[in-house]
Amino acid sequence: MIGIKNIGTYIPETRVSNFDRKEEFGIDDSFIVDKIGIQSVAKKAEDEETSDLCVKAFQNLLTKQELNLEEIEVAIVVTQNPDYNLPHTASLVHKKIGLPESVASFDISLGCSGFVYGLSVIESFMKQHGMKKGLLFTADPYSKILNPNDKNTSLLFGDAATVTLIGEDPIFTSGKSTFGTIGEGYGELICTDDLYMNGRSIFNFAARYVPKDVKKVLLKNNLSQDEIDLFIFHQGSKYICDTLIKRIGLDESKVPFDAGTYGNTVSSSIPIILKKYLEDSKEVCSDKTLICGFGVGLSWASTILHRNKTKN
Amino acid sequence: MIGIKNIGTYIPETRVSNFDRKEEFGIDDSFIVDKIGIQSVAKKAEDEETSDLCVKAFQNLLTKQELNLEEIEVAIVVTQNPDYNLPHTASLVHKKIGLPESVASFDISLGCSGFVYGLSVIESFMKQHGMKKGLLFTADPYSKILNPNDKNTSLLFGDAATVTLIGEDPIFTSGKSTFGTIGEGYGELICTDDLYMNGRSIFNFAARYVPKDVKKVLLKNNLSQDEIDLFIFHQGSKYICDTLIKRIGLDESKVPFDAGTYGNTVSSSIPIILKKYLEDSKEVCSDKTLICGFGVGLSWASTILHRNKTKN
Repeated sequence: MIGIKNIGTYIPETRVSNFDRKEEFGIDDSFIVDKIGIQSVAKKAEDEETSDLCVKAFQNLLTKQELNLEEIEVAIVVTQNPDYNLPHTASLVHKKIGLPESVASFDISLGCSGFVYGLSVIESFMKQHGMKKGLLFTADPYSKILNPNDKNTSLLFGDAATVTLIGEDPIFTSGKSTFGTIGEGYGELICTDDLYMNGRSIFNFAARYVPKDVKKVLLKNNLSQDEIDLFIFHQGSKYICDTLIKRIGLDESKVPFDAGTYGNTVSSSIPIILKKYLEDSKEVCSDKTLICGFGVGLSWASTILHRNKTKN
Repeated sequence: MIGIKNIGTYIPETRVSNFDRKEEFGIDDSFIVDKIGIQSVAKKAEDEETSDLCVKAFQNLLTKQELNLEEIEVAIVVTQNPDYNLPHTASLVHKKIGLPESVASFDISLGCSGFVYGLSVIESFMKQHGMKKGLLFTADPYSKILNPNDKNTSLLFGDAATVTLIGEDPIFTSGKSTFGTIGEGYGELICTDDLYMNGRSIFNFAARYVPKDVKKVLLKNNLSQDEIDLFIFHQGSKYICDTLIKRIGLDESKVPFDAGTYGNTVSSSIPIILKKYLEDSKEVCSDKTLICGFGVGLSWASTILHRNKTKN
């Protein structure tokens, strides 16, 4: 049985404060703190490439986890901001961390639903091929494409990367998953010359579809809402998380909002939070965690993560 | 059991003849006919997007195959030339062919190894999720990125798209697969401002690694070289196919070179040929077909396709 063994993350130290931009964008403290909930966004260095962010997340993983590179059999990067359109970014990561030639590698193009999809793709690929160790990277630095003068995007999106080690004797195993696509909404969050987001439309989509998908994934896994200890939603904004809590009828202590100091990190938002729950704690129970990503596409995906270790 | 049920293709009718470019590039008939083996390359219309090519391949599929769109559960596009970097191209295809909201969709970024990888990804994803009908698209129109004055690329690459219907009661099922990556070679075929290819380096890579991988995939499937009826190699050029025939020691009647009139179509090269062998014929036996893709990355992948229908 394979699943999530460990997670490494990288959030650049440089932050752009939204409080410094109140005048520029005509916003107030309440908008920053209560509505978007994002006080500053993380920003990579100009010369840091997407593959570099992946490498830094991998270095973070190595501080917590011994790893024999020769045992890695697959490496997947989830990104829509690759170093180059060709070759795939996983190839550059392969070179930079010195993976063996026998490694299967490719990129998946997805945004905020990318971690949940990516987890399913790497796990099913590994099972099919009898692989025992794999790396799932997420890295989607929107600072590469967003217009810093665009209020709709520059106050929200932060840069980050994560790597999830998939293998045997895991901490979390995946239950059944749900997926969906609304191609009609492809233009609501799109990069033509630079990034454009129809925030209202994306919000409405999430507020309408995520509650339905939460029901669907619970039903598919024969679980009731009360049996879930932790709901990790993609961190679009505090407002969307608050809205989901209300619409679904959740205990807000079970729904972390964590992006306040680094921003909406696209496909990295869920693993950044999940990392904090790898170690079981008495404060917060996370035997059964529901994760749900949603956004660009429009696209969404949910699954249940089951903790395998017995509690202390 | 799922596998390949049918294939639709689209090769744009417009061709650029390499014979018309002999003076421009200082090449002769022998170079065109015997060396690269590509007499003309297919070229999409300026306003045809990658997703449009996919739609046309899908329309071709529908001329041969009844299909209830409501039954499709997953759609994957293999491309490194997406309509936009975000959203994923599969989202635009989803909209344009009118797929239901319940469809899982994403893009895979890979080049010439993309079909073999993509086949494995979609089949393992479908098995994992109990899905019964899926669409695997390939579309990588290099005319979007190549410099028409670059002899190394503009004489070789042609535009095309394919769609492979995956489902139950298939014609071909996949055996065990092999994969590999040499990240060190990422710069040998790369798109920075436009496409750059170190043709000699890519050739040497293929000539060295493909024979090894053919041996490896045969061993993994407990098959001898003689038991394979058909070897479909990525159609990089006639010269690489001829070299592989010689180095591996193959009967050339078992190794089609088909790209002469439309060019190297990247991830579409293998399914375009495979389509011709869907129907069993007395002329050519294809009970066991080895497919192998190789190129940008550097990346490669091989598998064995087993015919399920009994022969007439």
